[in-house]
Amino acid sequence: MRTSPRNSSEKKVEPDIGLAERLFDELQNRTSDIQGITRMSYGVGEEIAHSILKREAETIGLEIETDMACNSYVHLRGINDSPAIVIGSHLDSVPMGGNFDGAAGVLMGLSVISGLVKSGMVPPQTITVMATRAEESAWFSSSYIGSRASFGLLKPNELTDVKRSSDGISLGEAIAKTGGSIEEIIKGKSYWKPRDVGLFIEPHIEQGPMLDSQGLPLGLVTDIRGSLRFRNAVCDGAYSHSGTTPRALRQDTVLAVSKLTVKLDMLWEKLSAKQEDVTITVGELNTDPTEASFSKVAGRTTFSIDIRSNSKKTLEVSERDLMAAAREIEKELNVKFRFGPRTRTNPAKMDLGVINELRHFADESNQIVTEMPCGAGHDAAVFASLGIPTGMLFIRNTNGSHNPYEQMKLQDFYLGASILIKLCQKSLDKLI
Amino acid sequence: MRTSPRNSSEKKVEPDIGLAERLFDELQNRTSDIQGITRMSYGVGEEIAHSILKREAETIGLEIETDMACNSYVHLRGINDSPAIVIGSHLDSVPMGGNFDGAAGVLMGLSVISGLVKSGMVPPQTITVMATRAEESAWFSSSYIGSRASFGLLKPNELTDVKRSSDGISLGEAIAKTGGSIEEIIKGKSYWKPRDVGLFIEPHIEQGPMLDSQGLPLGLVTDIRGSLRFRNAVCDGAYSHSGTTPRALRQDTVLAVSKLTVKLDMLWEKLSAKQEDVTITVGELNTDPTEASFSKVAGRTTFSIDIRSNSKKTLEVSERDLMAAAREIEKELNVKFRFGPRTRTNPAKMDLGVINELRHFADESNQIVTEMPCGAGHDAAVFASLGIPTGMLFIRNTNGSHNPYEQMKLQDFYLGASILIKLCQKSLDKLI
Repeated sequence: MRTSPRNSSEKKVEPDIGLAERLFDELQNRTSDIQGITRMSYGVGEEIAHSILKREAETIGLEIETDMACNSYVHLRGINDSPAIVIGSHLDSVPMGGNFDGAAGVLMGLSVISGLVKSGMVPPQTITVMATRAEESAWFSSSYIGSRASFGLLKPNELTDVKRSSDGISLGEAIAKTGGSIEEIIKGKSYWKPRDVGLFIEPHIEQGPMLDSQGLPLGLVTDIRGSLRFRNAVCDGAYSHSGTTPRALRQDTVLAVSKLTVKLDMLWEKLSAKQEDVTITVGELNTDPTEASFSKVAGRTTFSIDIRSNSKKTLEVSERDLMAAAREIEKELNVKFRFGPRTRTNPAKMDLGVINELRHFADESNQIVTEMPCGAGHDAAVFASLGIPTGMLFIRNTNGSHNPYEQMKLQDFYLGASILIKLCQKSLDKLI
Repeated sequence: MRTSPRNSSEKKVEPDIGLAERLFDELQNRTSDIQGITRMSYGVGEEIAHSILKREAETIGLEIETDMACNSYVHLRGINDSPAIVIGSHLDSVPMGGNFDGAAGVLMGLSVISGLVKSGMVPPQTITVMATRAEESAWFSSSYIGSRASFGLLKPNELTDVKRSSDGISLGEAIAKTGGSIEEIIKGKSYWKPRDVGLFIEPHIEQGPMLDSQGLPLGLVTDIRGSLRFRNAVCDGAYSHSGTTPRALRQDTVLAVSKLTVKLDMLWEKLSAKQEDVTITVGELNTDPTEASFSKVAGRTTFSIDIRSNSKKTLEVSERDLMAAAREIEKELNVKFRFGPRTRTNPAKMDLGVINELRHFADESNQIVTEMPCGAGHDAAVFASLGIPTGMLFIRNTNGSHNPYEQMKLQDFYLGASILIKLCQKSLDKLI
């Protein structure tokens, strides 16, 4: 007996891995940089990636939409009109980043839809692949730009105040140049309402080493860490001669920022001992290239601080301790810290029902999956914060992300897509 | 009764402060930069300063010489042919430095000679003003280039290996372009022998705040600190995601160099407690401007270390402790330090007889002078190392040196020149 094409739960449907492999190659080739790939937010590389997605969707015969912030949507309409299952991630990258961060989530969604179409299966509800814009805050110092805009949550002042790091162009200008509508964003118009999204899944390569070190292909994210950032902190002291200025009369900003960095590491150690989830990073630290010299005490040092935690309270405690440490060092070394603009994102919890469903389908495939927190920020945090049942599926990756050496195996990607294709065949109202 | 013009010790001779004031103004105007002044070693600004010196010497009717390394000499011949009293300093400056560092010593010498000439006094021995080249190691990473060359002590490989920081031109090429003779330097030819110099005095603005804080116009230097420098040290670790890389798996070079900087400050504190003379400075510290980011653990950090002491042993102990601290941090944080080329100068003691003579003439003028070590390196160290009786006269200065805000009062300069003019009137064989 042949199974009916609508009898989805019994039919073994395969994701279209051939399509994913071909598109990963095309993305790599068409957005390559001196090292790795570059897909600047609202820039050429990101635009290439969106155009590839739309071209393929058209070939498959899907419904294609673009919103006011240039996010792309590809729909495979379902039998009923209940809220959609949305699979999505971003298509931009950090400068000279890797090919998989972001793109893997979009291509997994598309390989799921293509697999469903090829099998002749019509899913119970609409399956949407969403490709967001401007998720990598290396370009614009705002978080989750595309996904927030899709819900009408971008603030008008962000359009003018937030400038692209590479060329100083404002976010609004960049969106307009890409074909978006500033007017609609300012009016707070949205592409959709939270109730339109039945379930949001963001598949993403793991950006840390945990899955690889545990020998597991997939992970289920429990929370997305929130962040607290000072991207442009400054310490001011006084330049003076390195050989003639006594220790007590110095206003040494290299020593001051070094002491602060060491104290932040001690704070991390202390919080870890209390089992608090946190990471603390001073990623940039620079003396002035024109004024500093090996034979001068440095009168100015600039630096960045990035603190992340799955607990809002831990972020607050860390900030308080940071400021206390800075005040102490200011007194001790006669320097002055100015931390500059602070950017923040809230921690987000992934939905327990979604996690359980994903584990269920993984079990069915005899796949061991582990649960883990996610250190980096992701668009999924926006969906979760709006009360949408949200999950993240991590794919094993070596060499970390945000660098040219990301390495995701297509076999692991296949295992993830296989789980999602099962999820998509099920009626959502029976899921959660 | 009129005093005989040769009865020098009884005649009150005044230094030519008008000339000094005029030439300080001309130097300021003709070598000014965006901020302060720039007189690059073997560059335009330094050349302007030497040409001003020679023009004035010609006007006064003095003997003028230039050696193979383009040092300038101005002689007022004395009655006898015993070794000369040489008053000298350099005419180059750091980039965007102050008008007085170096130039004050040369102009003090010239105002002394001009004063002697105007009074009709012929001094017992020849008085020479020497203006050295390339003393500021901001340009070429070799110390005391001009003064060493005058004694034939520049090493041939320095001519090819040492490159100017601003434009990469080799020291030899820079000397040749200024009109010097590379051939003679390579052959080890010298302008003079140590026995030709009866006494060397380097007047110089104080580069630290001690005289100003004690309310004294002049200081007598007891020793010149030697130095130990790593101008291009590197710490290598690994770039990784700031939100996803656990503390134990990081190879964080900002944290590593910060820890080293804090340890060096603790070493300084420890040595100070033992009354050891030392300064320790990390003056430059930089993450990679293209690779580093606020959201990445920094995989590479570059930095400089400058250690100075009047004791060779303290320099050795400091280097040993530095290396031990680095090894410890390497193990703890899984990073690797490479300290790169090391440059060194030896500490030099000023001559006790010279110090006593200068104090004697200061006493005669009812001037209180204090004795103090000198933190910075000076050409005087070369003369002292060759066994020449050598002294340094410090002039009060506010705001430190190596910056546009140096401030020397002409009144203090006058007091210094008055002491030197008395010294020059005395027969050297009766001095020391």
